[in-house]
Amino acid sequence: MRENDLLAWIAANAGRHPSVPLGIGDDMAVVNLHAAPGNDGVPALLKIDQALDQVHFDLRTHSPAAAGRKAVNRCLSDCAAMACSPAAILVSVALPRNADLKLAQELFIGCRDAAAVFDCPLVGGDTAVWDQRLVITVAAIGVASGRPILRNAAQPGDSVCVSGKLGGSIIGRHMNFIPRINMARQLASMVDLHAMMDLSDGLAMDLPRLLKASGCGAAINSETIPIHDDAETLSSRDGKPALWHALCDGEDYELLFTLSGPDAAQLGSLSLEAPISVIGTITKEPQLILQDAARAKNSWPKGGWEHGSMEVQGHE
Amino acid sequence: MRENDLLAWIAANAGRHPSVPLGIGDDMAVVNLHAAPGNDGVPALLKIDQALDQVHFDLRTHSPAAAGRKAVNRCLSDCAAMACSPAAILVSVALPRNADLKLAQELFIGCRDAAAVFDCPLVGGDTAVWDQRLVITVAAIGVASGRPILRNAAQPGDSVCVSGKLGGSIIGRHMNFIPRINMARQLASMVDLHAMMDLSDGLAMDLPRLLKASGCGAAINSETIPIHDDAETLSSRDGKPALWHALCDGEDYELLFTLSGPDAAQLGSLSLEAPISVIGTITKEPQLILQDAARAKNSWPKGGWEHGSMEVQGHE
Repeated sequence: MRENDLLAWIAANAGRHPSVPLGIGDDMAVVNLHAAPGNDGVPALLKIDQALDQVHFDLRTHSPAAAGRKAVNRCLSDCAAMACSPAAILVSVALPRNADLKLAQELFIGCRDAAAVFDCPLVGGDTAVWDQRLVITVAAIGVASGRPILRNAAQPGDSVCVSGKLGGSIIGRHMNFIPRINMARQLASMVDLHAMMDLSDGLAMDLPRLLKASGCGAAINSETIPIHDDAETLSSRDGKPALWHALCDGEDYELLFTLSGPDAAQLGSLSLEAPISVIGTITKEPQLILQDAARAKNSWPKGGWEHGSMEVQGHE
Repeated sequence: MRENDLLAWIAANAGRHPSVPLGIGDDMAVVNLHAAPGNDGVPALLKIDQALDQVHFDLRTHSPAAAGRKAVNRCLSDCAAMACSPAAILVSVALPRNADLKLAQELFIGCRDAAAVFDCPLVGGDTAVWDQRLVITVAAIGVASGRPILRNAAQPGDSVCVSGKLGGSIIGRHMNFIPRINMARQLASMVDLHAMMDLSDGLAMDLPRLLKASGCGAAINSETIPIHDDAETLSSRDGKPALWHALCDGEDYELLFTLSGPDAAQLGSLSLEAPISVIGTITKEPQLILQDAARAKNSWPKGGWEHGSMEVQGHE
């Protein structure tokens, strides 16, 4: 079963509802909450996300607090992707039977403190005990201070940008990242963002999702992709190009966004918490091209987190 | 580790936030969502709830659709407890590695259709695959058409009421119940409900929670507790009194509420989807008394879902 196939089937079978301007398929859903009939209502942004022991973290290595922090930050990264302020989180925890009260308390503190960084209260939860591994599921509700930034609004000619540096987060960054909520809100208030999402499954898998939602393509310059030192470290260990790691490793939790060329030119003058790289241009033709300075065209690598074992094409 | 101890610790350590009139401890949390600073905002009701394979359902016996339906209905029962209309649900699913696309699709349909009964759209989700059992986590967001009905407002002299009949749901009803959303909203619009919650862990465990939140006690007449035929069936199998099953079995998903005596007297004239039983009276003294027609006082049974093995006191 491929995750993308299931997600496409679910999106096609979720149905439509007059109170849901944005359903399944973006980083968060948007639901209009009406306190009373006829009332204008408030658009609430909603997300649920799970973190599983030995999939997203490993209790044999990571503390309960670190696991809780990551579970919350994964969910809050989707708030960043919409340029949304989280208003509250809920946390559901399935505890292994041998867990003690101390583990549960440390887990809770990790969750609570990660959200508190963004003045976001933990308002509810659910606990159960079972004879399987730890599951932490986090739901976030937020409001967009302006309009939420969706995946579907990239325009031909837009510059394609990413924050920070990519690849190799498995070395440790995947447990310690700070969701780019402040940066996303700052960007949304200062430039006209067209499309945005967060990079959770790797640029190789996530950029095609943004392009598909927007109905366009992109030409990406491989030499402008910001490669993290951790990707270089992994490359020296496994012999795969560092660029491959930057494209295909998951869990960067950086922002991927598009905006007009003139707006992109202004980015350098903003004081942001991480550098922004312009890595290419949105094209009208719905194809994705990876090119280097010699204008040699390479295939876009298939892969990212979905496959477990990932293939590279055109990167030898 | 006792669930109540953990919940009490979490409630004490969750902190307060100016946008959260009601945090951890009731059936749902209330968060004020402000579209813009100074805006009055809309109070959003929030809940997260999980259903675990071989804890809350059993895939060896139950279909994926039935598991999904129960997971959603458990969460929606908390909406009923607040007399709230669900506006949207989110569903997170950790699939066992051997699950196929068909299982995932049936699960989704079960979730979607359970929510659709209440015109509630499924707007988002998360899927992952792991080598452990199925986890379904559901988050619900709702709005109260009037004020939400909390646990903390029972008044001395109130009548204590339950909907439907109690006990023995494990025989099958726990998979097939319909959350009492329509009844709760009907009651809230027609009488002045003081305190309300849903019965998920059994009257023996849930009534003390309502009393503790309200700072009062109750005198319950054992002969007025509505005993389900399923409790009689279990009683004939295990020799425990049917009343014990009605008190201590979990997963009734009925409403427990209090209101003034005069309002309680009106209940008989309402056309409701299930009968209401008046089972006792709220007292000022914070003790819980179970009495029969001879006015013999019995101890309130300890137990309910928390303990696994449950004790009876005073019911021989």
